Amino acid sequence: MATTPVTLGQIAAKLGIAAPPAAAGLVITGVASLADAGASEITFLSSETHLKEFAKTRAAAVVVQDNVKFADAATPPPAIVLRAKDADLAIAVVLEMFALPIARPPLGIDPLARIAASSQIASGAAVGPFASIGNRVRIGANAVIHPGVQIYDDVVLGNNVELFANVVIRERITIGNRVTIHAGSVLGTDGFGYRWDGQKHAKVPQIGTVIIEDDVEIGSCVCIDRAKFSATVVGRGSKIDNLVQVGHNVTIGPHCIVVGQTGLAGSSSLGTLVLVGGQVAVRDHVSIGDMAKIAACAAVADDVPAKEIYSGVPALPHRQSLREQAALRHLPELRPLIRKLQDEIAQLNEKVQKLSEAGG
Amino acid sequence: MATTPVTLGQIAAKLGIAAPPAAAGLVITGVASLADAGASEITFLSSETHLKEFAKTRAAAVVVQDNVKFADAATPPPAIVLRAKDADLAIAVVLEMFALPIARPPLGIDPLARIAASSQIASGAAVGPFASIGNRVRIGANAVIHPGVQIYDDVVLGNNVELFANVVIRERITIGNRVTIHAGSVLGTDGFGYRWDGQKHAKVPQIGTVIIEDDVEIGSCVCIDRAKFSATVVGRGSKIDNLVQVGHNVTIGPHCIVVGQTGLAGSSSLGTLVLVGGQVAVRDHVSIGDMAKIAACAAVADDVPAKEIYSGVPALPHRQSLREQAALRHLPELRPLIRKLQDEIAQLNEKVQKLSEAGG
Amino acid sequence: MATTPVTLGQIAAKLGIAAPPAAAGLVITGVASLADAGASEITFLSSETHLKEFAKTRAAAVVVQDNVKFADAATPPPAIVLRAKDADLAIAVVLEMFALPIARPPLGIDPLARIAASSQIASGAAVGPFASIGNRVRIGANAVIHPGVQIYDDVVLGNNVELFANVVIRERITIGNRVTIHAGSVLGTDGFGYRWDGQKHAKVPQIGTVIIEDDVEIGSCVCIDRAKFSATVVGRGSKIDNLVQVGHNVTIGPHCIVVGQTGLAGSSSLGTLVLVGGQVAVRDHVSIGDMAKIAACAAVADDVPAKEIYSGVPALPHRQSLREQAALRHLPELRPLIRKLQDEIAQLNEKVQKLSEAGG
Repeated sequence: MATTPVTLGQIAAKLGIAAPPAAAGLVITGVASLADAGASEITFLSSETHLKEFAKTRAAAVVVQDNVKFADAATPPPAIVLRAKDADLAIAVVLEMFALPIARPPLGIDPLARIAASSQIASGAAVGPFASIGNRVRIGANAVIHPGVQIYDDVVLGNNVELFANVVIRERITIGNRVTIHAGSVLGTDGFGYRWDGQKHAKVPQIGTVIIEDDVEIGSCVCIDRAKFSATVVGRGSKIDNLVQVGHNVTIGPHCIVVGQTGLAGSSSLGTLVLVGGQVAVRDHVSIGDMAKIAACAAVADDVPAKEIYSGVPALPHRQSLREQAALRHLPELRPLIRKLQDEIAQLNEKVQKLSEAGG
Repeated sequence: MATTPVTLGQIAAKLGIAAPPAAAGLVITGVASLADAGASEITFLSSETHLKEFAKTRAAAVVVQDNVKFADAATPPPAIVLRAKDADLAIAVVLEMFALPIARPPLGIDPLARIAASSQIASGAAVGPFASIGNRVRIGANAVIHPGVQIYDDVVLGNNVELFANVVIRERITIGNRVTIHAGSVLGTDGFGYRWDGQKHAKVPQIGTVIIEDDVEIGSCVCIDRAKFSATVVGRGSKIDNLVQVGHNVTIGPHCIVVGQTGLAGSSSLGTLVLVGGQVAVRDHVSIGDMAKIAACAAVADDVPAKEIYSGVPALPHRQSLREQAALRHLPELRPLIRKLQDEIAQLNEKVQKLSEAGG
Repeated sequence: MATTPVTLGQIAAKLGIAAPPAAAGLVITGVASLADAGASEITFLSSETHLKEFAKTRAAAVVVQDNVKFADAATPPPAIVLRAKDADLAIAVVLEMFALPIARPPLGIDPLARIAASSQIASGAAVGPFASIGNRVRIGANAVIHPGVQIYDDVVLGNNVELFANVVIRERITIGNRVTIHAGSVLGTDGFGYRWDGQKHAKVPQIGTVIIEDDVEIGSCVCIDRAKFSATVVGRGSKIDNLVQVGHNVTIGPHCIVVGQTGLAGSSSLGTLVLVGGQVAVRDHVSIGDMAKIAACAAVADDVPAKEIYSGVPALPHRQSLREQAALRHLPELRPLIRKLQDEIAQLNEKVQKLSEAGG
């Protein structure tokens, strides 16, 4: 389970920065937080808010964001310091060096998988046990179909698709290249549509499909519903977190981020590069413009213009939300204040009354 | 994958309306939105808000709601128009005509399914691979058990039940006739009940069951918990969307609609024909009366009378919610206003003081 | 399916209280609510709010909380009454007596399970069909691995672990002793981390793990993500309800309760004995102190001190939330009130003006 150790010199080289020559041969065995890192591990300091933890770290080395200033220049740092222009990028690079392989079924088709004869699976596929692949399914090169994945008839998967355990892909759905779907997600359930016919909720047929474009990543236990007609679409490069609900005929543009437990109701749409926080609700038929940002827990009931930030329940322009929230914090004081004014006015009235009587 | 094309005359006949005789033979190949429909497709216009898209549609034909007026009676419509009394119903009828079959395992029991010898499966069943059916399970006629479905001991399923891939039905649960449960849902997990015994959260046994009545449809990744005792009940004809949580001992009456990501806490109850929007939370032991409607994202902490509409966090009668929201929009202006009044009163006081001194 | 009937004397003995000698031999066949209990069943009355249902119960016997007073001491109770100091504890004890066994795969490894040769499974294991166990997995004594469970490489499970149907445990995850995970949950999906590289959301490798300590119970369709590095941790004795999202690097302390549909964002932490209601959102990097309580539907954006109760969106100390909510209920009246004051001040100004002119 251990990763191959690497030297600090190798890490510095990958980051394109200089390591102290004396320490270049130092063996680094892993990555951990400032607080948890042991004597052979590397860690990160990306802002001054963590200087206290930094001072106490037992790590061998720390990658420090260029613009972070140490509180006390005189005290020698507690570990070897590598300065990086972009600590976030450096973290990603270092994590990559220590990443262990994803567990995958071996190449080939497990004898306990069930593959329809009419399906076409390109070369390089790994299909785990208890996976089923329906009729006329077409799967591109290098697919990884983990155990327990159920793929229905007439599905099309691109190249380098990875479906983790127990994912379900319903019939006639199209998935692009380099798409990853994590365990337990379900694509292509009927959209939720009924019509009260006087006696019962009659089902409105959901005859559309789902289209997942290239380079999409979808978390676990995500539900993406089949369109009433046409398609529910997730645009290329978009990333969807766990437990998200995507209703029928939703359109998610390219490069969107949708954080966990958010729900996008039927026919809502996100433009390009939209960022939606966690537990957000977007009402049906609402459009969110390009590069807009929706704060976590917002309830979006009306269209959001491009590039705007919205927050709150109901969602409003973020500044307005903040202003209303600030006012709400003082709301309990207002009623007593108003009562006091009422009293003062009553007293004034009395005085004025007396004055006018006296003057009369 | 293509559906059988149908003629416009056939569609008109199904809708019980007249098609222009010259166009009756026109072949329609599918259904799409006003914007997406191609030259051989049919689409819909159910309100005047979409007249712009209508003007630009390339569809062959458009089903138009009777009361929709065209902006400019002089301009000929861009496609053949079929007038329908109820466009929603017409859509459902037309979608039905173009619906492709649901992918199902073939009739019979897959050799890679695991069926307990003591289970009884009526005629017409289709059981997919990697499905397991426990001891003493009884399954009615024409059941469709998709791949990866796990049915525990002593479960009873009615006739014409369909369980999509990877559904889990825990022991001793009863499911009525014509019930559909979509992929990844779990029925019969222990209700969430513990008692702090001074040292740990001791589990309260959950010895009850779940009863799903006839004609219920349940979405994907829905969790319906087993009762503490007696039963958690979903009434006949009710429809539950994806990712809904139904706690132990909840009672959902007949013909309710529960939209995605809603949570009904333990022992809460919905009457008949209750409509609950998405991401709603209903507190434990709260009752919602017949035909009440709960707006999306509401947090229902108290009983809701029959036929009322509630919304908001916490949920209030919808009118009150709207009134408070409207007032909130103006809240930031109130403090400056009150300050201004304070100043004016102070000035008045001064003037009155002077007057009374002058008069004294 | 029926439980073995027990006598009222046996129940009383288990509860450590006295049954009326004449009724000790009475056979009790089950447990039900006050309203539903039949003539051979036992039920409970834990507070005076249910006295009406109590008066009408058809139960054979009722366990009544010691301090509950009957409305009318003269009327004989409708059933045999057993007085208990702690009705909640009594309910748990009685439910235990009537609990039916959990349906489990038989001891041993099902021939339709797929077990890697390099895995080690201690004695007493039951592994159901369609379960897969990866390379180098180590499983403690008496494990129950239900059908369709997928366990990836290098996972470690303690003793007496139970994984219900279709659970997925990703590679290199460690699970303690006496841990129960309900159907459909997923542990170890990559944390949700990307970096915009100017052209795309580049994935930040998630090389950490998940650690589930002893005596944890996890509901259905729960997602617990793998850490970016180090570990996402669920502390011993903690209980997590259905459809909860636990982000990467979250730390849940010992003996916490997390109710359904709650989301804990990345690197948030709960102390010891924290209680988090349903549908709560906790922002990333936020800490909630020991024994704090978070009300259902709260959105926690800042640290919560130990022992505090927080509620609301955004979450505030509960008293402040209540005060603001109370003020909000009166907010719509404030604007008209202020307008009235404005009018009164205007009138006063006029009067004072006249007076000063008259006096001038």
